[in-house]
Amino acid sequence: MIHITRRERFNAAHRLFRPDFDDEQNYKVFGKCSNPNWHGHNYELFVTVAGEIDSDTGFLLNLKSLSKLIKSKVIVKLDHRNINLEVDFMKGKLASTENLAVGIWNELEDHIKELGAELHCVKVVESENNYVEYFGIS
Amino acid sequence: MIHITRRERFNAAHRLFRPDFDDEQNYKVFGKCSNPNWHGHNYELFVTVAGEIDSDTGFLLNLKSLSKLIKSKVIVKLDHRNINLEVDFMKGKLASTENLAVGIWNELEDHIKELGAELHCVKVVESENNYVEYFGIS
Amino acid sequence: MIHITRRERFNAAHRLFRPDFDDEQNYKVFGKCSNPNWHGHNYELFVTVAGEIDSDTGFLLNLKSLSKLIKSKVIVKLDHRNINLEVDFMKGKLASTENLAVGIWNELEDHIKELGAELHCVKVVESENNYVEYFGIS
Amino acid sequence: MIHITRRERFNAAHRLFRPDFDDEQNYKVFGKCSNPNWHGHNYELFVTVAGEIDSDTGFLLNLKSLSKLIKSKVIVKLDHRNINLEVDFMKGKLASTENLAVGIWNELEDHIKELGAELHCVKVVESENNYVEYFGIS
Amino acid sequence: MIHITRRERFNAAHRLFRPDFDDEQNYKVFGKCSNPNWHGHNYELFVTVAGEIDSDTGFLLNLKSLSKLIKSKVIVKLDHRNINLEVDFMKGKLASTENLAVGIWNELEDHIKELGAELHCVKVVESENNYVEYFGIS
Amino acid sequence: MIHITRRERFNAAHRLFRPDFDDEQNYKVFGKCSNPNWHGHNYELFVTVAGEIDSDTGFLLNLKSLSKLIKSKVIVKLDHRNINLEVDFMKGKLASTENLAVGIWNELEDHIKELGAELHCVKVVESENNYVEYFGIS
Repeated sequence: MIHITRRERFNAAHRLFRPDFDDEQNYKVFGKCSNPNWHGHNYELFVTVAGEIDSDTGFLLNLKSLSKLIKSKVIVKLDHRNINLEVDFMKGKLASTENLAVGIWNELEDHIKELGAELHCVKVVESENNYVEYFGIS
Repeated sequence: MIHITRRERFNAAHRLFRPDFDDEQNYKVFGKCSNPNWHGHNYELFVTVAGEIDSDTGFLLNLKSLSKLIKSKVIVKLDHRNINLEVDFMKGKLASTENLAVGIWNELEDHIKELGAELHCVKVVESENNYVEYFGIS
Repeated sequence: MIHITRRERFNAAHRLFRPDFDDEQNYKVFGKCSNPNWHGHNYELFVTVAGEIDSDTGFLLNLKSLSKLIKSKVIVKLDHRNINLEVDFMKGKLASTENLAVGIWNELEDHIKELGAELHCVKVVESENNYVEYFGIS
Repeated sequence: MIHITRRERFNAAHRLFRPDFDDEQNYKVFGKCSNPNWHGHNYELFVTVAGEIDSDTGFLLNLKSLSKLIKSKVIVKLDHRNINLEVDFMKGKLASTENLAVGIWNELEDHIKELGAELHCVKVVESENNYVEYFGIS
Repeated sequence: MIHITRRERFNAAHRLFRPDFDDEQNYKVFGKCSNPNWHGHNYELFVTVAGEIDSDTGFLLNLKSLSKLIKSKVIVKLDHRNINLEVDFMKGKLASTENLAVGIWNELEDHIKELGAELHCVKVVESENNYVEYFGIS
Repeated sequence: MIHITRRERFNAAHRLFRPDFDDEQNYKVFGKCSNPNWHGHNYELFVTVAGEIDSDTGFLLNLKSLSKLIKSKVIVKLDHRNINLEVDFMKGKLASTENLAVGIWNELEDHIKELGAELHCVKVVESENNYVEYFGIS
């Protein structure tokens, strides 16, 4: 078994807040990340898949196909978007990096099986100092 | 003469659009950067100052003072903010990286003189693929 | 379960040597790292914690709290310090990156439990070519 | 147990193709990577080894020895070479990053045991967007 | 006046050699870079243009147009190519990074004028340790 | 004319202090950088030289020669050293990054002329947030 990782990127706006809190309460819990006028990030997404090497191609899977899949299922929904307002798989969820990683996992898991591999890890890098990794439910 | 550069960072939301255009016209000119629901970036700001080495300290200037100055005059206004809606020195301007670099220059120029140095360059990195440099009016 | 990682940095001096060896013997074993006049590094510390997402916040834990914890328990003791002479949790130990990673783990483990998460990995990057990871005693 | 990672680099030419395919068929499967006139990369190789800390040195193993081993067994064969034509352990294999990672593992595994550690992971970074990790047969 | 920089990337094979030298002579002058079986790099290309900010757009120029221009005039000729054998603007020249930077400048200069800006610098990064900058004939 | 840049690295200990100050006075001026027990950095040194392309080689100069020169004249004196105590060209000077850049310039300038090029810039990166550039006396 081997692991292969593809990086894709997206730039998005978001805000950390609970709709049942007022601005002051949100500020107490989420600090400046709760700014009602939004802020944003250059997110990096690392998708790691696992599987066997296909002896016909030397590939676990075709990286072009993996890149296309990630772009069509995830990046197109997130890039230059507002995570709170515009991303279907984040509706009703707090727009944290943790929830984002889980949401991206759920969008990709089945499609990666169709490519003949297993999704192993979704890593979302929010800044040079913070990142989240999700390995699925074990 | 010597040049010293300090990096600071800020995460902000913005949108490229003209208020006299409708959404469709804005999309034609500014593409997905015109998304009415905003998007955002991890911006990196590199401030380069020029001057002579002070033989008493071995410094052109105290980097702590430079960092504090940049934070208090610029970063506090930009970090976790909406550049279009909340940044005084960007009011009435298109929120492009070019205008941002010029705006930051104008906020810093005089204060850096007070520290005994000359502002040489403001560099704003919007993504790993794009950055703007402003060297003032020459 | 999800993993979240916080990066902090510290600049420190150290020396690899055994007090029961003379300089020549130390040079044989530790090379130029044994220089009696010290040398130093910009260390990067990556602390990875594991746990469940709190549905009230969308967080595994508050990253501000994690950052404060790492700074108050570890960085304040290491930054701009001499690892051999000034760091209590390294007293009597060889100042290798391996021992540093284990020492940092021991300083943090219980406090991270108090934040409601499990310490998963301490990664210490000594240079762009070398790093150490410690996952605790298993 | 602790993990330590050493990075080495090599620049090489390669081509993805099957000798039983003609150029058109190869282009269909491997795209521009099948260019008969070759292309190349700055590869980064991260070798992670696992073991116990030696209390006499504070080391899992001497990083100089690990670096020398990787250079003498792997880098010297790959750097400024054509992976398809000149690398003994890649003869008869498709020159994919996956096969390269497995090939490097096989070259290193026994020699790292002789250094008193276990090979844990071979990571080959082909570009800022793609990398492969191999953890051996489990 | 303001400067804006766009990064693009290409992976290519090349060889440093003079056709009037035999392999031994080439090795003496160019070392392992003269390997007759080629080697390759992940090149990074930074194109810096200078001009005035257009008050209608806030842009010096549209970065999408700049990116498209660089890709269509330069990257398409270099990416996954053999610089010695396949790149028209390098025919008859030594495939050094210096000549590459000058060649790219000549391909781009006039087209950037058509975009309403001046080409200021072509920077070609061959590895993390080496890069070349060309500012045109002054 | 073309510019070529070579990066080299060194790890060193230093301390910012004036011998005519006591520890308290030094702390007031230099902060934690004045720690009497030293601290250290992974320094990056970028040496940029300028000149014409030699049509016989396609080179401004042989990068191997430049690298060897920088290593033999500068890196060997700084790497794994104490900048205050052990570096001849820093004797009697405050061990600031500014003075270090000027010192390195003076060590290299004449030797680079012997290689047939002009020293253009010495850049010393002390951390990811700070760097100094020296372009000589103009």
